[in-house]
Amino acid sequence: MKKPKSISAVARQEIRFNECDPLGIVWHGNYVKYFEEGREAFGKKYGLDYMDLYVNGYATPIVHLESFFRKTLQYKEVALIECVYRKTDAAKIIFDYTIRKESTGEIVCTGSTTQVFVANGTMQLALVTPEIFINWRKKNNL
Amino acid sequence: MKKPKSISAVARQEIRFNECDPLGIVWHGNYVKYFEEGREAFGKKYGLDYMDLYVNGYATPIVHLESFFRKTLQYKEVALIECVYRKTDAAKIIFDYTIRKESTGEIVCTGSTTQVFVANGTMQLALVTPEIFINWRKKNNL
Amino acid sequence: MKKPKSISAVARQEIRFNECDPLGIVWHGNYVKYFEEGREAFGKKYGLDYMDLYVNGYATPIVHLESFFRKTLQYKEVALIECVYRKTDAAKIIFDYTIRKESTGEIVCTGSTTQVFVANGTMQLALVTPEIFINWRKKNNL
Amino acid sequence: MKKPKSISAVARQEIRFNECDPLGIVWHGNYVKYFEEGREAFGKKYGLDYMDLYVNGYATPIVHLESFFRKTLQYKEVALIECVYRKTDAAKIIFDYTIRKESTGEIVCTGSTTQVFVANGTMQLALVTPEIFINWRKKNNL
Repeated sequence: MKKPKSISAVARQEIRFNECDPLGIVWHGNYVKYFEEGREAFGKKYGLDYMDLYVNGYATPIVHLESFFRKTLQYKEVALIECVYRKTDAAKIIFDYTIRKESTGEIVCTGSTTQVFVANGTMQLALVTPEIFINWRKKNNL
Repeated sequence: MKKPKSISAVARQEIRFNECDPLGIVWHGNYVKYFEEGREAFGKKYGLDYMDLYVNGYATPIVHLESFFRKTLQYKEVALIECVYRKTDAAKIIFDYTIRKESTGEIVCTGSTTQVFVANGTMQLALVTPEIFINWRKKNNL
Repeated sequence: MKKPKSISAVARQEIRFNECDPLGIVWHGNYVKYFEEGREAFGKKYGLDYMDLYVNGYATPIVHLESFFRKTLQYKEVALIECVYRKTDAAKIIFDYTIRKESTGEIVCTGSTTQVFVANGTMQLALVTPEIFINWRKKNNL
Repeated sequence: MKKPKSISAVARQEIRFNECDPLGIVWHGNYVKYFEEGREAFGKKYGLDYMDLYVNGYATPIVHLESFFRKTLQYKEVALIECVYRKTDAAKIIFDYTIRKESTGEIVCTGSTTQVFVANGTMQLALVTPEIFINWRKKNNL
């Protein structure tokens, strides 16, 4: 059986009036919310639940965020937020995002987030990947 | 010594680009944040700290919110948010707000919030006013 | 033919992590966004488009908002936001909202918004209902 | 007279309750707002007004955003947001940000934004730096 190159999920999001700025376009900071929508869709599809990690002793804060804004989105347009798991052996969770305009397929925004594992309470960085996450990787051939 | 009719505090808030909508004015939902700014200013001025209440076993959720929008605010204008304590013997904290445009003094928005006391954890409503809050009232002649 | 008592629409909204506060519950100000979701669902279902009104010369700002918070919602819970048109002959658009927890049907929040018609540009209040909206009312037997 | 290596401004921001997430810390997406606060403080200090650019025919959308999250901030802590102009001859405006905890001086977050010049209306990218911005650079020895 061949391993998949990557696994991904797509969230669909209609642009809200309150997400748009005086220029009539989505304020750039709101794309961080769209990335979170993508991560949620991914977590649901592949059983990656931050609460599971949390009760196992780990929080997974985002330590790096990058985004490239290429086009704009307006009120009532629909965004398709693709969230792709980036394979790595590091004690990290990295996602790449591509946000497209549903009507035309144009790429509006791309980006990535990097999460690390820290111990609940102490917030001390986990240097090795937690077993619960290693198991999740295995289950998904990653 | 005469008791004061009410006590109040004012927060000053420059309108941010990301708070304005495609009509170029503050999106109405953002006034709830301005009310919170007013409450914070009040709490600081009169030593009413939600954390003190919290460690004494009480959360103070908002159960009612009302606002009247009369004028609009734009990016870079300055709002003066007045937060007035409304005297009551009920087990409640009620604030009235008046938001004015600094440049003209015009009233932009008025409103009120009502908070109750609930026990941390159980979220059960406190039917009598917690002693810590009774003491705070006394200290401020309320 | 009997007129319907009211017409309504329901929006479904999964609670996002970034909408919850340090108490682990939806921050009360975010319910204003949920009301907007309800209005959007209503507008889509009954062909009430603020852009149509806008190109006909009218903006429809919210002049009054009221909400009662009865229960709380947490991350990953699902809210059902019912938006009901309140019949009136006044030059106003009034909606009533009921937000329920999908899993239990419990009422979490109720509220209302009132919009008026103002002329684009001058922002002068329209004292009579615009014809385009009278037509919309007729079409929906309201 | 020696040219300064860079010019910068600092905004001071008390962390609001509604900016914190269920982990009790500022939700990472809110740092984008803090960057905007930094840019505003810079613009005010050095007379860089996006509205001036706008009336001269240019919008300045953000095309790239990057942030590194190193520490966390909690409700009531104070953030000092330093916004530094990065010198470049390209038709771009680049800012670097350093957000520190006021109480300890610790670096909480660093990042950068890149803005380009586009023609109002057409949204076509300006390949050469607009004269109004060249003049602004000269005036500030940049």
